Amino acid sequence: MSTTVPEYFQGFGVDKAENWNKPKLVSYKGKAVGDNDVVLKNIACGLCGSDILTASGQWSPLLRDDLVVGHEIIGHVIAVGKNVTQVKIGQRCGIGAHSSSCMSDSCGRCSTDNEQYCKINGVGTYNAVDATDKYVTQGGYSSHSVAHEQFVFPIPDELETSHAAPLMCAGLTVFSPLVRNIGRDAKGKTVGIIGIGGLGHLAIQFAHALGANVIAFSRSSSKKDQAVTMGASTFIATGEEKDWTTTYDDKFDFILNCASGTDLDLDSYLSVLKVDAKFVSAGLPPSADKYSVSPFSFVKNAGNFGSSLLGSKVEALEMLKIAAEHGVKPWVEEIPISEANCNTALTRCNDGDVRYRFVFTEFDKAFK
Amino acid sequence: MSTTVPEYFQGFGVDKAENWNKPKLVSYKGKAVGDNDVVLKNIACGLCGSDILTASGQWSPLLRDDLVVGHEIIGHVIAVGKNVTQVKIGQRCGIGAHSSSCMSDSCGRCSTDNEQYCKINGVGTYNAVDATDKYVTQGGYSSHSVAHEQFVFPIPDELETSHAAPLMCAGLTVFSPLVRNIGRDAKGKTVGIIGIGGLGHLAIQFAHALGANVIAFSRSSSKKDQAVTMGASTFIATGEEKDWTTTYDDKFDFILNCASGTDLDLDSYLSVLKVDAKFVSAGLPPSADKYSVSPFSFVKNAGNFGSSLLGSKVEALEMLKIAAEHGVKPWVEEIPISEANCNTALTRCNDGDVRYRFVFTEFDKAFK
Ligand SMILES: NC(=O)c1ccc[n+]([C@@H]2O[C@H](COP(=O)([O-])OP(=O)(O)OC[C@H]3O[C@@H](n4cnc5c(N)ncnc54)[C@H](OP(=O)(O)O)[C@@H]3O)[C@@H](O)[C@H]2O)c1
Ligand SMILES: NC(=O)c1ccc[n+]([C@@H]2O[C@H](COP(=O)([O-])OP(=O)(O)OC[C@H]3O[C@@H](n4cnc5c(N)ncnc54)[C@H](OP(=O)(O)O)[C@@H]3O)[C@@H](O)[C@H]2O)c1
Ligand SMILES: [Zn+2]
Ligand SMILES: [Zn+2]
Ligand SMILES: [Zn+2]
Ligand SMILES: [Zn+2]
Repeated sequence: MSTTVPEYFQGFGVDKAENWNKPKLVSYKGKAVGDNDVVLKNIACGLCGSDILTASGQWSPLLRDDLVVGHEIIGHVIAVGKNVTQVKIGQRCGIGAHSSSCMSDSCGRCSTDNEQYCKINGVGTYNAVDATDKYVTQGGYSSHSVAHEQFVFPIPDELETSHAAPLMCAGLTVFSPLVRNIGRDAKGKTVGIIGIGGLGHLAIQFAHALGANVIAFSRSSSKKDQAVTMGASTFIATGEEKDWTTTYDDKFDFILNCASGTDLDLDSYLSVLKVDAKFVSAGLPPSADKYSVSPFSFVKNAGNFGSSLLGSKVEALEMLKIAAEHGVKPWVEEIPISEANCNTALTRCNDGDVRYRFVFTEFDKAFK
Repeated sequence: MSTTVPEYFQGFGVDKAENWNKPKLVSYKGKAVGDNDVVLKNIACGLCGSDILTASGQWSPLLRDDLVVGHEIIGHVIAVGKNVTQVKIGQRCGIGAHSSSCMSDSCGRCSTDNEQYCKINGVGTYNAVDATDKYVTQGGYSSHSVAHEQFVFPIPDELETSHAAPLMCAGLTVFSPLVRNIGRDAKGKTVGIIGIGGLGHLAIQFAHALGANVIAFSRSSSKKDQAVTMGASTFIATGEEKDWTTTYDDKFDFILNCASGTDLDLDSYLSVLKVDAKFVSAGLPPSADKYSVSPFSFVKNAGNFGSSLLGSKVEALEMLKIAAEHGVKPWVEEIPISEANCNTALTRCNDGDVRYRFVFTEFDKAFK
C-alpha cells in the first residue's frame, strides 16, 4: 500500500437535514484502508438526486453531523490494499453508490454478480455503517474516497471525466434494469422511460443504444426536443395529455421509472404493459411516500411493479464499454466544487433546474 | 347445432348485493349460441371466492337483478356451433371464469395463447357484457352454460366431476402463474403460497407436483397439518410467528398470493424474495382495498409485485393432465344445489368454514 493517504480527508458536509443545501467545508478522519480497498484522490463528482433525498433526511436520519454526500466519484488511485488486483496506482477510476459488500463465496448475492444486493454487509458510499469497522461512510464531495476494489470501476480513456462521473450511479442504475429486462439486443421492443432527469436522460440513451424503441414520459413538454435528440421516438407529457393510455395500451415490453417522486399515475403505467411485462422503479421517492396499488391495475396483463438498485461491477464495466462505443454521453453542467457552488447546485437540482446533471470539478482548488 | 337447447335457462340468482348469500331460483333467457360456441348441460359447479366478491358488489356493481354466479362449471356438451371442432356432443367438459374473447389473429393476446388477457372482448363467465351481442353473462349455479370453444376444457376420464370442477378456476388460476414463474421442473426452487383456501390448497399441490419446495403461509396454525399433507415442507402462521422474515430472508424464488383480502404484510413478503424474483397476487381483494407499497420494500432484492389472471386453454389442458398424473385433488365438500344450500355454502365459505372447496352437485334435481 502506498503511504500517501492522509489521515484526515476534507469534504463539504451537512450538519443537519434542514441544511441539506448548505454543506460546509469539513475535515474528518478517513476510512481505514482494508486489504481489498482502493483509495482515490477525487477529481470530480456528479450530483445525484439521492444526495438531496439523503442530505434532507427524506430517506432516513443523518448518521453524522458532518455528512458528505456524493456517489458519482471519479479520481486517481493513490493507494491500494495488499490484496487488490483489479486496479493500479495512478489509474483513473470511479466509485458509485455502494462502496463495499461481504464478497464472501457463501453469500448468494456477492457470489453471483449481484453484490449490489448483498444483505450481509452491503455498504452505501455515504450515510451507511460498515459493519466491519463501524465507520459511518462519507461521499465524494470530498478530497478522497475509499472503496473495496469490487466497487471501483476503471474508466475507459475515451470517456471524459465529467462524462464518466454520472455513469457511476445514474448510468449504472438505469443500465442494469434495462439489460436485465430487455437484453442486449432490444430491437422490436418498446421501452418507456419516466422522468427525464439525471437517470432518465441516460436511460433514454442506453435503451436507444440497446436497440429499443423508446417512449419518454415527462410531466411537462419542456424537455420534448431534447428527449428526441437523446433517442426517444415518442414523447408524452403526462401533465398535458390525459388519455395517452388508450393509444399506448398493450405497447410496452418494459417501463423504467426514473422519477424522484410519486407524482405519477402508477395505475396507468401498469395498465399499458404487455402480458407478463414489468414496470421497474429505479426512482426512490421519499420513504414516507407510498405507491398505492391494487392488483386490479394489472390483473388484465399479469403486469408487475418492481424495483431495482444500482448494478453489479460486471454490468458497470459493460456499461462503460457501451457508452464509449455508442457515444452515450451525460449532458452535464460542470461546476467547481465549493460551499457556494454546492448550495447553488443542490438548490437548482432540487428545483429541476439542470439539463441534466451537475458535475463538481476543480477538486484540487477546494481541497489543499 | 343440436336443437335441444332450451330458450330459457334456470339458475340461482342474486337480486342485489345485500342478498349476496340468498340466491333465488330464477329463469332467464339463455345466451344466443354463436358459431364457435358450446352449450353445456351443467352437472356441477365449484364455489369460488370470486362468487362472493362479485355477488356482494365488492368488485363492481351487479349488472343484472337475477345475477347467477359460479365459474367452476362441469357439464355435458348438448350443442355446438357450426365452427366448433375441439369438443363433441356428449363429452364431459368444463368452463372456468372466462367464456369468450375476440380470438382474432390480429389480437396480440388471443393469437399468443394469452386469450385470458384479451382486451378487445374478453368476457367473464358472469356479470360481464359480451360486446358482440350485449348479453350480460350468467354463471354456473344454473342449468346450462354457453361458452366459446376456446374456453371449454375436455375433462380427462381419470378425474371425478367434483374434483374437476375446482380446477376450472382455482386450479388454472394457480397453475398458470406457477408454470410461468418456476417452470415445469422446479426442483431446487422454493415457492411460498399465501392463503390456504380454494386456490391456495391447489397451489400447494401443484407447486409440489412441479418439484418445488413449498412453504405455506396462513394467518393461523389451524391448517398446518393439512397443508403438510398437501405437500408443504414448512408452514408459517403469520398471525403467530412475527419474525419469520429473518429465518426466510433471501429464500424465495417465487411467492403466489392466494388470499382473498389485504390482511397480509406485503412489505415482509416482498423483502424475502431472491434477487429479481416475484410476488404474484392471484388473490383479488375488494376493489376498494389497495396495497400500499414503497420501492424501499424491495429495492434490496430487485423484487417485483405482480398480478395474474386465470390461465390459457393450453395451460388448462396441461394442468388437467398433470392433475390426473400426479393425483392433484381438490379437497371438496359436495353439496346439492338449492336455494338453502347456496345460502349455506356462500355463508360458510365467507366465514372461512370449508376445507377447501364447496362443489354444488345434483343439478338434475334442482332444474327440471
Ligand atoms: N434505485 C437506485 O439504485 C437509485 C440510484 C440513483 C438514484 N435513484 C433515485 O432515482 C431518482 C431520480 O434521481 P435523479 O438523480 O435522476 O434525480 P433528478 O435528476 O432530480 O431527476 C428526477 C426527475 O424526476 C421527475 N420528478 C421530479 N419530482 C417529481 C415528483 N414529485 N413526482 C414525479 N416525478 C418527479 C423529474 O422529471 P420530469 O420533469 O421529466 O417529470 C425529474 O427530472 C431519485 O429518487 C433517486 O434517489 C435510485
Ligand atoms: N386472479 C384470478 O384470476 C382469480 C381467480 C379466482 C379467484 N381469485 C381470487 O383469489 C382469492 C382467493 O379465492 P378462493 O376461492 O381461494 O377464496 P377462499 O377459498 O375463500 O380462500 C381465501 C383464503 O384467503 C385467506 N383470507 C381470507 N380473508 C382474508 C383477509 N381478509 N386477508 C388475508 N387473507 C385472507 C384465507 O386463508 P388463511 O386462512 O389460510 O389465511 C382464505 O382461506 C379471491 O380474492 C378470489 O377472488 C382470483
Ligand atoms: Zn445516485
Ligand atoms: Zn454479500
Ligand atoms: Zn374463480
Ligand atoms: Zn383477443
